[in-house]
Amino acid sequence: MDMDKLVSLCKRRGFIFPSSEIYGGINGFWDYGPLGVELKRNIKEAWWRDNVQMRDDMVGLDCSIIMHPKVWEASGHVGGFSDPMVDCRECKGRFRADQMTALVFTDRSGPQGATNPRPLVFSAIGEREDVERENAKAIEKFKKANAAQADCDPDVIRLDNLAITDELYALVPCPSCKARGTLTRPRSFNLMFETNIGALEDASSKAYLRPETAQGIFANFKNVVDTGRVKTPFGIGQIGKSFRNEINPRNFIFRSREFEQMEIEFFCHPEESAKWYQYWRDQRFQWYVRHGLRSDRLRLREHDANELAFYSTGTADIEYSFPFGVSELEGIANRGSYDLTQHQKFSGKDLSYFDEERWERDKAGLGLTSFKEYVKKREGEPQPGYPYQYIPHVIEPSAGADRATLAFLCEAYNEDEVGGEVRNVLKFHPRLAPIKAAVFPLVRKDGMPEKAEAIYRDLQRHYPVFFDEKGAIGRRYRRQDEAGTPFGITVDGQTLTDDTVTFRDRDSCRQWRVPLAGVVQAVRDLLEGGSVPAADRPAAAEESDAT
Amino acid sequence: MDMDKLVSLCKRRGFIFPSSEIYGGINGFWDYGPLGVELKRNIKEAWWRDNVQMRDDMVGLDCSIIMHPKVWEASGHVGGFSDPMVDCRECKGRFRADQMTALVFTDRSGPQGATNPRPLVFSAIGEREDVERENAKAIEKFKKANAAQADCDPDVIRLDNLAITDELYALVPCPSCKARGTLTRPRSFNLMFETNIGALEDASSKAYLRPETAQGIFANFKNVVDTGRVKTPFGIGQIGKSFRNEINPRNFIFRSREFEQMEIEFFCHPEESAKWYQYWRDQRFQWYVRHGLRSDRLRLREHDANELAFYSTGTADIEYSFPFGVSELEGIANRGSYDLTQHQKFSGKDLSYFDEERWERDKAGLGLTSFKEYVKKREGEPQPGYPYQYIPHVIEPSAGADRATLAFLCEAYNEDEVGGEVRNVLKFHPRLAPIKAAVFPLVRKDGMPEKAEAIYRDLQRHYPVFFDEKGAIGRRYRRQDEAGTPFGITVDGQTLTDDTVTFRDRDSCRQWRVPLAGVVQAVRDLLEGGSVPAADRPAAAEESDAT
Repeated sequence: MDMDKLVSLCKRRGFIFPSSEIYGGINGFWDYGPLGVELKRNIKEAWWRDNVQMRDDMVGLDCSIIMHPKVWEASGHVGGFSDPMVDCRECKGRFRADQMTALVFTDRSGPQGATNPRPLVFSAIGEREDVERENAKAIEKFKKANAAQADCDPDVIRLDNLAITDELYALVPCPSCKARGTLTRPRSFNLMFETNIGALEDASSKAYLRPETAQGIFANFKNVVDTGRVKTPFGIGQIGKSFRNEINPRNFIFRSREFEQMEIEFFCHPEESAKWYQYWRDQRFQWYVRHGLRSDRLRLREHDANELAFYSTGTADIEYSFPFGVSELEGIANRGSYDLTQHQKFSGKDLSYFDEERWERDKAGLGLTSFKEYVKKREGEPQPGYPYQYIPHVIEPSAGADRATLAFLCEAYNEDEVGGEVRNVLKFHPRLAPIKAAVFPLVRKDGMPEKAEAIYRDLQRHYPVFFDEKGAIGRRYRRQDEAGTPFGITVDGQTLTDDTVTFRDRDSCRQWRVPLAGVVQAVRDLLEGGSVPAADRPAAAEESDAT
Repeated sequence: MDMDKLVSLCKRRGFIFPSSEIYGGINGFWDYGPLGVELKRNIKEAWWRDNVQMRDDMVGLDCSIIMHPKVWEASGHVGGFSDPMVDCRECKGRFRADQMTALVFTDRSGPQGATNPRPLVFSAIGEREDVERENAKAIEKFKKANAAQADCDPDVIRLDNLAITDELYALVPCPSCKARGTLTRPRSFNLMFETNIGALEDASSKAYLRPETAQGIFANFKNVVDTGRVKTPFGIGQIGKSFRNEINPRNFIFRSREFEQMEIEFFCHPEESAKWYQYWRDQRFQWYVRHGLRSDRLRLREHDANELAFYSTGTADIEYSFPFGVSELEGIANRGSYDLTQHQKFSGKDLSYFDEERWERDKAGLGLTSFKEYVKKREGEPQPGYPYQYIPHVIEPSAGADRATLAFLCEAYNEDEVGGEVRNVLKFHPRLAPIKAAVFPLVRKDGMPEKAEAIYRDLQRHYPVFFDEKGAIGRRYRRQDEAGTPFGITVDGQTLTDDTVTFRDRDSCRQWRVPLAGVVQAVRDLLEGGSVPAADRPAAAEESDAT
């Protein structure tokens, strides 16, 4: 699939526009148009329904984007949420050093076999797999051109490696203008957007736009436990906007500066965190499969031990192979007690959880009547209340709503041939499709528009539907294929004699007839996963109905 | 109704928490808890469904919060979106001068009837009606204390009136510490939160958090027209967060610094704007009535001519009488062509609309074949293409999602007496209720929990529902009353013999029986507006079932 084609379809059909386009746009910000907003709403709604409302062990939350700045000290974002940034003094280009790799070939062709490191090329501004691919290409090219050194593999050095000497660093070419010696050493650049609350602009008024929704959940953990009658294991889900001042936003809506997250923090007993980690990893992977990411472009990748944050005992990425490279859709991490412990430390509030049920069950066996006795007996232990009182461990499935939208768009995008013409079709899962069905009168006479409109009104009470009476029927079908509408319903000549209408399936173009009185039920059955009936007539027949 | 009681219920039952509470909170920011998030979601969903999806003349949009800064120059927010701010040098209090009124009594008690203005009191930090009420009280008090001058009405001067002399200004007491001569003159304070994009912090990188969602719609007008096959009259709806750096956030979630808007921009022919203004004003008022704001606390107030913005030919506020005063829930404004004209000017893009249908209809009558001819004939006119090509006029119904949430909460909050006890109940419209029904086994034995759970699972496939098996049934009902759950369903002794369950209505406490097999349908009928059947037994009977 070609990314440019998708971006162009998204613009042309009103899925996604560049933000502030009439003012020349603003890098890293996007707007969802009439079809896009419904697609993204459906994705968020499906996530909320499946992960929050349908589960007895989950509740929802909606926190403010601007929170107390201490939240971000506790979370580590004030100190550590930064990218190493490199500037080119020549072309003013700006790059992320951790995404830049210098390939250092040691040139042995000088006199007396003197070694002379020779940085050849580096790939900047790429996701992990891009960089690897570009490097492999460059190495191959170098080896071809320098047959004498074909056995000499280069060292691969990331530019944020502080061990690079000044001499070597000066040899690294700018990835944009190719000048050498023009790159600054990496500087740490915090990715949080800053603002000021109140009229004063000083340290006391400084605040941040949240770079993730997760911390709002941790900050409310105690409130939810105190008011919600929740018991471990339980989770809190949240959907909302987050902001990161990316040095190089890119790849359409994949890496933008303003984006929407769908995050779960699932709190459980420390002994059970490994089990719940596995559970959520598999659960979330299956969610994408169930909603249409069925191809081998979707995969689950466990992090190696050296990729893990120091507090994590397990992290997996759900990755999707986008046209620009394999990238993360969602991360599922076993974060242990790290986050709540940090907030307990910074807020001075007790964020431990008392597992009353477990205590009530065990206390007789322990020969005790009060929990205080138990704690007293274990005085001096690091956690005297354990295993009844503890800081819960946290499993965090963290998904990007825009990334999911992009993956569903990529997977849905198909080109095939219908009636001898190339057709663009978005094969969305019916649950995600912006419009569920389109209703057409075959021609604008003989009472067909009135009958079609009655069907449209009937359906509209239940689903977002579309009515279109203009142009050849084949073209109308094609427009809906591009919008991803799963079903077309046409009032035609036969309708006038036998009160049936033509149903048409977007993916197969198969057509069959349904009695007028059964249209709403038929749409409901199809949307709820019913299979498309065998065709009453071949797909190409639709073209012959053209007005 | 007492505001403190509502705030306390909201906290206690997990509707609304102060943001970042474990860090002492952050003034002007609020978080929605498990019940609150569902309530607000339902309000937004009802708005979206009724105003966007169910209408053929509306489409949706979802724009970024951070837009190109030129958007805010064009809209006038950079230059004019500010409040006059007054500081007290003594107590460091900060106030809005436009909400502060000095009552200036002219003291004629001096020798030879010398006049001597004597500022007495002023009311700060109030909504319009608060200030008026406080002033009236103060005048009455003054007159009582100064019987000699009882006929002397004070001048009412707003502190942002630049005509106040320094002598008079020095006499005005601080509304907080009451010191005189300590207030600064008003300074203009822009309400937009600022941030910087990219690593540089200079004028070139400055950006704003949007103070309203409306401008994103105007900036996308051309994109929607070009891609959406929309024709005037049509509207674009959007729901999203906005930010205002309020000097004094207050009144719970009514005036906060981060809030959510539900805005429509409805584009129509200039000749039809008065008609559409009336239409939307009435439509939007009825929407609140339909969702439960039935009391006389809701009202529609047309602005007087002197309240109108210079470009507006009509503005109405939908107001609600909150415990803290009568305040605006939604404003409906006829904004003329002001906004699109501004964006056309600042962007240099043509934002006019060509009404092709109207032209096709009229051209034969005009004896013309091409629109170019028409424009040529009218050369020199201010709008040569009129009435076929024009900048559409705009009707803007602009609602606050948090304000609506607060109004629905205030209206729903009731205290009554059931079984001799005071009951707190939230009488939400079923469409807005966070939980639609709660299912209870009367006791935890005789297979009741299993039967109840089966009902719960059945209902859960369609609606957010709750299961509760702990405690006396009366207390369980009461907990759901406080959460606003419209219906309770209890599996009891009779269920075991005749396969019926008890339905219980939240508002009337009436109870009646429904066959097990008909539970889902009965809930659906009730939620869709069916009336509650006559009771099979008196309301108080519920207490006798207590376990």
